[in-house]
Amino acid sequence: MYKGVCMITSLQNAQVKNIIKLNQKAKERREQRLFAAEGRKMFLEAPSGWIHKVYVSESAEKDEELMKRVRLFPWEAVTDTVFRQMSDTQTPQGILTVLHTPFYREEDLLKEENPLLMILEDLQDPGNVGTILRTGEGAGVSGVFLTRTCVDITNPKVIRATMGSVYRMPFAYVEDVPSLKKILAKRGIRLFAAHLQGKKAYYEESYQGGTAFMIGNEGKGLTDRAAGEADSLIRIPMCGQVESLNAAMAAGILMYEAARQRGI
Amino acid sequence: MYKGVCMITSLQNAQVKNIIKLNQKAKERREQRLFAAEGRKMFLEAPSGWIHKVYVSESAEKDEELMKRVRLFPWEAVTDTVFRQMSDTQTPQGILTVLHTPFYREEDLLKEENPLLMILEDLQDPGNVGTILRTGEGAGVSGVFLTRTCVDITNPKVIRATMGSVYRMPFAYVEDVPSLKKILAKRGIRLFAAHLQGKKAYYEESYQGGTAFMIGNEGKGLTDRAAGEADSLIRIPMCGQVESLNAAMAAGILMYEAARQRGI
Repeated sequence: MYKGVCMITSLQNAQVKNIIKLNQKAKERREQRLFAAEGRKMFLEAPSGWIHKVYVSESAEKDEELMKRVRLFPWEAVTDTVFRQMSDTQTPQGILTVLHTPFYREEDLLKEENPLLMILEDLQDPGNVGTILRTGEGAGVSGVFLTRTCVDITNPKVIRATMGSVYRMPFAYVEDVPSLKKILAKRGIRLFAAHLQGKKAYYEESYQGGTAFMIGNEGKGLTDRAAGEADSLIRIPMCGQVESLNAAMAAGILMYEAARQRGI
Repeated sequence: MYKGVCMITSLQNAQVKNIIKLNQKAKERREQRLFAAEGRKMFLEAPSGWIHKVYVSESAEKDEELMKRVRLFPWEAVTDTVFRQMSDTQTPQGILTVLHTPFYREEDLLKEENPLLMILEDLQDPGNVGTILRTGEGAGVSGVFLTRTCVDITNPKVIRATMGSVYRMPFAYVEDVPSLKKILAKRGIRLFAAHLQGKKAYYEESYQGGTAFMIGNEGKGLTDRAAGEADSLIRIPMCGQVESLNAAMAAGILMYEAARQRGI
């Protein structure tokens, strides 16, 4: 029987060491084209073709229903102690999936007739990027472009915050906004920048045609260079002394206004 | 000269120990009716009448512009090492304000003619509660009610996430939703529950009259008891396989739809 014979019991095991590296280092994830996703939901929703290997703790191995699916893939059992070390979370659920990083072409993000796109410039907070993917899937977003200065989308904290949406939301990296703008303009996709200097309130524009929203860095907002490419600067009106909204919140409000106008 | 003579250099200092307690324990904050807020912005925006005492690190004490305002209040200097221990953040800015916890009456939240209210039931994530206060101020919310099972609003992580809105947004604790519902009904304030079983999309209701939105616990949603008090169950439509939105995001989308309808 497999169990007991092959259970990984040592932190010195090469696979365990590699998972810790994948959790900690964007460079490793990039070079190996692999990333780790923790938890039941992230395993159960993972596209089969992406799954490289599944690791379960000895406790999770007792969950027969879970194991039925785990056994469809290459998998290993590890002791609970080793699992805690492999885990990036405070309360590990005992299952970690190593997946191949998907590669999307621009075309995959643009194939709909009137795409709804997000462009994230230099976003640094993993929770924000993950939440934008999750909310974006809910709002019917077609794809997310990220500048290369953004936090790595396969960062474990991003992955967790997507709640599975990373499996379904096409994403692609771009050098910068001006190079992307040319592609969008050719297809008649309008580019909107959420900007404190915006003249029109965001709900005064129409998002029924091809639409792309730009969201800038948490502290500094959009660069002038990116904002300069926008077809329209829009603002989210703010009462009181609020100077800006959280980046993911601003993104969510814009995406859901587009969804409302599109009648999803 | 004050400086150098009185600088707190020891972690055993009673004030330092008390601030660590205030950061860590809701019970201490409740009994002392004090809370701590870190950072320049949180000091600069604090209502003067709330400030109990200001603590600055020896590094921050060199900032003459900051110190001009600090000196208007009771204050102490502490060594950088001690400050790091007092601090709840990874990268302390060298200033921590201890404030009196404000007390609002129901009336303070209801004094506008057509109030826009949030009711948070059993929210546990400090970032969510803080973000709802911040976004709520932006959207023109009149006040936030919280059930006693919610995370303490003076928790340092909540305070930080409010980005100062905690100083301006009236809030009050309620035993439960049914007792609050009676007060709202008497004033003709309509109660809406964001609910997965909602029949109407959120943008199909009018929020121009007195409006209260209920948001439920991150994992479990609203209790049946709370949802049962709603005048209308509304849903935020979701595409793809998204089962729910982050609680703060759902709140933000509803508050900004109300703001849009009210033309803020």
